[in-house]
Amino acid sequence: MGQQQQQQIDFLEDRDQRVNDLRIMANRLRRHSLEMTAASRSGHPTTCMSCADLMAALFFYSLRFDLKDPKNPLNDRFILSKGHAAPALWAALAEAGAFPVEHLQTLRRIDSDLEGHPTPRNRFVDIATGSLGQGLSAGVGMALNSKTNWIDNRIWVLLGDGEIAEGAVWEAASLASWYKLDNLVAIIDINAQGQSQRTMFEHDLESIENRFKSFGWQTYQINGHEIEQILEAYEWASHVQERPAAILAWTEKGRGVSFLSDKDGWHGKPVMGEDLERALRELEADTQPSRPLAIAMPSPGAQDSPLDPPQRSEMEPPAYGDGDSIATRRAYGVALRKLGAVSNDVFALDGDTKNSTYSQDFQADFPQRFIECYIAEQNMVGVAAGLSAVGKVAFASTFAAFLTRAYDQIRMAAISRSNLNLCGSHAGVSIGEDGPSQMGLEDLAMMRAIAESTVFYPSDGVSAERIVALAAETPGICYIRTTRPATPILYSNDESFVVGGSKVVRRSDDDRVTLVGAGITLHEALAASDQLQAEGIAARVIDLYCVKPVDAETLRQAARDTGCIVTVEDHYPEGGLGDAVLGALADEEVRVRKLAVTGLPQSGAPDELRDAFGISRGKIVAAVKELLG
Amino acid sequence: MGQQQQQQIDFLEDRDQRVNDLRIMANRLRRHSLEMTAASRSGHPTTCMSCADLMAALFFYSLRFDLKDPKNPLNDRFILSKGHAAPALWAALAEAGAFPVEHLQTLRRIDSDLEGHPTPRNRFVDIATGSLGQGLSAGVGMALNSKTNWIDNRIWVLLGDGEIAEGAVWEAASLASWYKLDNLVAIIDINAQGQSQRTMFEHDLESIENRFKSFGWQTYQINGHEIEQILEAYEWASHVQERPAAILAWTEKGRGVSFLSDKDGWHGKPVMGEDLERALRELEADTQPSRPLAIAMPSPGAQDSPLDPPQRSEMEPPAYGDGDSIATRRAYGVALRKLGAVSNDVFALDGDTKNSTYSQDFQADFPQRFIECYIAEQNMVGVAAGLSAVGKVAFASTFAAFLTRAYDQIRMAAISRSNLNLCGSHAGVSIGEDGPSQMGLEDLAMMRAIAESTVFYPSDGVSAERIVALAAETPGICYIRTTRPATPILYSNDESFVVGGSKVVRRSDDDRVTLVGAGITLHEALAASDQLQAEGIAARVIDLYCVKPVDAETLRQAARDTGCIVTVEDHYPEGGLGDAVLGALADEEVRVRKLAVTGLPQSGAPDELRDAFGISRGKIVAAVKELLG
Repeated sequence: MGQQQQQQIDFLEDRDQRVNDLRIMANRLRRHSLEMTAASRSGHPTTCMSCADLMAALFFYSLRFDLKDPKNPLNDRFILSKGHAAPALWAALAEAGAFPVEHLQTLRRIDSDLEGHPTPRNRFVDIATGSLGQGLSAGVGMALNSKTNWIDNRIWVLLGDGEIAEGAVWEAASLASWYKLDNLVAIIDINAQGQSQRTMFEHDLESIENRFKSFGWQTYQINGHEIEQILEAYEWASHVQERPAAILAWTEKGRGVSFLSDKDGWHGKPVMGEDLERALRELEADTQPSRPLAIAMPSPGAQDSPLDPPQRSEMEPPAYGDGDSIATRRAYGVALRKLGAVSNDVFALDGDTKNSTYSQDFQADFPQRFIECYIAEQNMVGVAAGLSAVGKVAFASTFAAFLTRAYDQIRMAAISRSNLNLCGSHAGVSIGEDGPSQMGLEDLAMMRAIAESTVFYPSDGVSAERIVALAAETPGICYIRTTRPATPILYSNDESFVVGGSKVVRRSDDDRVTLVGAGITLHEALAASDQLQAEGIAARVIDLYCVKPVDAETLRQAARDTGCIVTVEDHYPEGGLGDAVLGALADEEVRVRKLAVTGLPQSGAPDELRDAFGISRGKIVAAVKELLG
Repeated sequence: MGQQQQQQIDFLEDRDQRVNDLRIMANRLRRHSLEMTAASRSGHPTTCMSCADLMAALFFYSLRFDLKDPKNPLNDRFILSKGHAAPALWAALAEAGAFPVEHLQTLRRIDSDLEGHPTPRNRFVDIATGSLGQGLSAGVGMALNSKTNWIDNRIWVLLGDGEIAEGAVWEAASLASWYKLDNLVAIIDINAQGQSQRTMFEHDLESIENRFKSFGWQTYQINGHEIEQILEAYEWASHVQERPAAILAWTEKGRGVSFLSDKDGWHGKPVMGEDLERALRELEADTQPSRPLAIAMPSPGAQDSPLDPPQRSEMEPPAYGDGDSIATRRAYGVALRKLGAVSNDVFALDGDTKNSTYSQDFQADFPQRFIECYIAEQNMVGVAAGLSAVGKVAFASTFAAFLTRAYDQIRMAAISRSNLNLCGSHAGVSIGEDGPSQMGLEDLAMMRAIAESTVFYPSDGVSAERIVALAAETPGICYIRTTRPATPILYSNDESFVVGGSKVVRRSDDDRVTLVGAGITLHEALAASDQLQAEGIAARVIDLYCVKPVDAETLRQAARDTGCIVTVEDHYPEGGLGDAVLGALADEEVRVRKLAVTGLPQSGAPDELRDAFGISRGKIVAAVKELLG
């Protein structure tokens, strides 16, 4: 008999007492939340109180989780999408024995792992939350991983009602039903209050339920303060089939304390002094459960077949011939397929652009590890972060321009310390005729400003392939910028590339200027250097294939050798390759001329646009001449 | 009798002929789309063919639009949310007489206003589209404007079925029904095909209809190739009440040509050579409508009362006293309220953070011009862009961190040349205990990289108020970064501020270093300069209140005067204030030390965090000493 069944039988034998114990536990969570936020003099206690019953019943009845082995793949997963209820999570973990209850008093302190909103600084957290409406996407990623690996666990996501206004929630809801994720449970804590006013729906559960139903979910309405109803809902959710389960829970913010319950004006506000004492008194009647409550262990039978340990061997090397040309986006697809062939933990995702980004090459060979996310980039990145949280290596691709759609999710993935690889194709004005809406022109700025990110920008097929392998091995957020048109192969198939590296592709002792480019502009720089050479001006040319971290040493040497530098990038002037070079040379007394796309571009032929917007070979030559003046 | 009624009577008298004329027109739009994209050797003809009947019937029967006065506020508005069908729009405009039909042959050329996706480079376009799932938000903004001004026009938005996977569509759908926008019509062109494969729903109109219904819309299913059904649907949509109207149109991509109709593999592909000839032959049977078709004029009675012309007079000046302190976010609210009092064209929007950003001050006095967008930042920015497109001045605010959610919408607003003002509060680690998810740390990079943007970062209440007035007058995307904690007033109430300006707040002839900060770090720089002064080191201090465009002249002078510069910002090191300074000094031989938030921050007290992450007064002093070392 499994542990879960035994527990259920125990429960049935003593149901009233058990329910009462959970009720007591819920009030303990409320008291902890009030005390923690009072100690930190900040935080959101009342939103913890609305979900306290839901949390107590989940943690101490339904969840299957080995606290001693939080990364055990058979564990259920819990995501607190309404991240501002972090104190309730910390309190539940403490009550379960994850850490001493006294530790709760360190909430929000710089020396504590109990942050204001959940982050994986605390080892029981998989995914950072606090930017609302993102938890369900991560849950979809985890649930897909379980389905792919035949793991019979459950992914529980607790959402607030305010956050379901976020479109990302509906992107996730749509994909979840499409993939029939009956191992995914969304619990909606409907306390009817947002931060600054009541929510759009207040307590109209019916309308919210209709939305989930129309998005293909099974639904269940409950009073989220009635433990028995909550348990019934969790039981129901544990047995739904073919579709994900949404539990719509009527609740009150501040529930349990008369002057807080369903009252306005208490969002993000600790309860202090006499108010606190009064609140605690109101919650004090029930003190200790009749017996210790614990989180149940995952069933050893949760896995139908042994889990494959992650495997990775060396990828097949690039195989280009003399004079070959290939678009780096196409080489990305080639490399992704090679990576898939030597690894069982790599997933690829796309947003209905796979025939442009060439992630379709991966799909062709590994359909079970390819996730078509349809045109919903926010959810795509969130799903990838969820996969990363359960140990997978995710590569998500779309046009560079459309990754802007998911910037908040990318930012949060960095806080989650996701091992997430993003590929943005169709960089810059060089896409040509489709026009500015399709041109990635701010992606380098966006991705450089992500904490601890790595930003790659390959210029040929060899480097593009090598960079895919590098990205797979590099922790944190990696970005690979690819180019639409084909460019000639520059490197031999055995050339090596490193994080933080660059290549000096042309140099002489007579160099009077250094040209720094990447991607399409490296080829413009090479052509410019030919023209300059014909006029007697030797130019060093550097391929800055890693824009962050930047190869400061090579740049400094070039600055000292040549005295002046021209950077050129198919990107807006701010925050991109040029700024990376300037940052590396901040301490050097060198003159730098930055060429980038100035002004708002438009449709046109790629070469016309590069010239009109200031980054063509001709413009490089002119800049050099002006600089050498 | 109104022109519209007359037209309808004419139509009834000769219905069969009229329907046939619209059918002929639809095929003309198909032929133009094929010919234009063949001429430009790129584009998406088949998606134009799926919506050709919908477009023909809309433009030549239902739309009310004065081609001679495209900005007439009584005009209906049309938004092509599925922007890749641009050729169909250009073709319809040409057939209506907006420009000569021959002009269509310039599609996608650098010298043409007919771009690959619609942009306001063509004067009949209000809003740039091409990043999918954004048109409906702009439509909501326009429809809200009509409601506010009692204009009886209609906002028509044509969406593709692929793009309704975008969550932003559902954010817009939700707000539209919340505000009872019965002047808003969404036409969903359900051709069942995306770019790389069939859509999630293919031709399951029922499921899509259920989603719109659950989001509070009235719905109507039709065959989108049957002119009579289309006309009935448009009639229905013109008379719905209390709720927005969604028309679900079954269509086929490539409709009208046997080898294109509902065939895979034709997305984003022109039809060339013999294929083109064959396609045109299949569409050639019907050539000219029996009589010229035109777009109907708006009814002069569409406005119940005369429109108020936009009015703006000078705002009340700041009114701070000696020793006052105020958070710049709070001053933003004060200023917005003052601006509202002297202007009738200013709207404010927020995403349920109005009690944090202080946009609630504006709401208090001008509730009819305040739009609560709930927690849906993408739609908030899209609605603001829609308001801007009909001549309003929109100020949208939320936490700086959460503007990342709308980066794609901001990018597109720049392409739309929106006059859009964004305020991001809670900048940097200085928010303290809430932790990294709530800290705006990449917003300067993100906003600087927007084409033709202006980026403000005030340090005190006076400058914050003045900057709100400046933003209202400055075209394009303006960003105002505000700070959570209070800071002392630095400037007299009559101090003036300009776009591209800065303030030298401390200087002497003995300055050996220049400290450049803004917002909270300006105050750290001032404190550091006090400490340095005590040790005999005179430091110039510059308030870089306008980060873009940057005051290069003042920075260069400081570089020449003091020889070295320390920048300090509560932002990640990439793309922010420090990079702006480096960019301005690229041509100067000066040493710059950039202090910024290094590494991933966490919860803690603001002053602890500033020190731990490298931007405190102490760290500034240390950097100066090292630099002068």
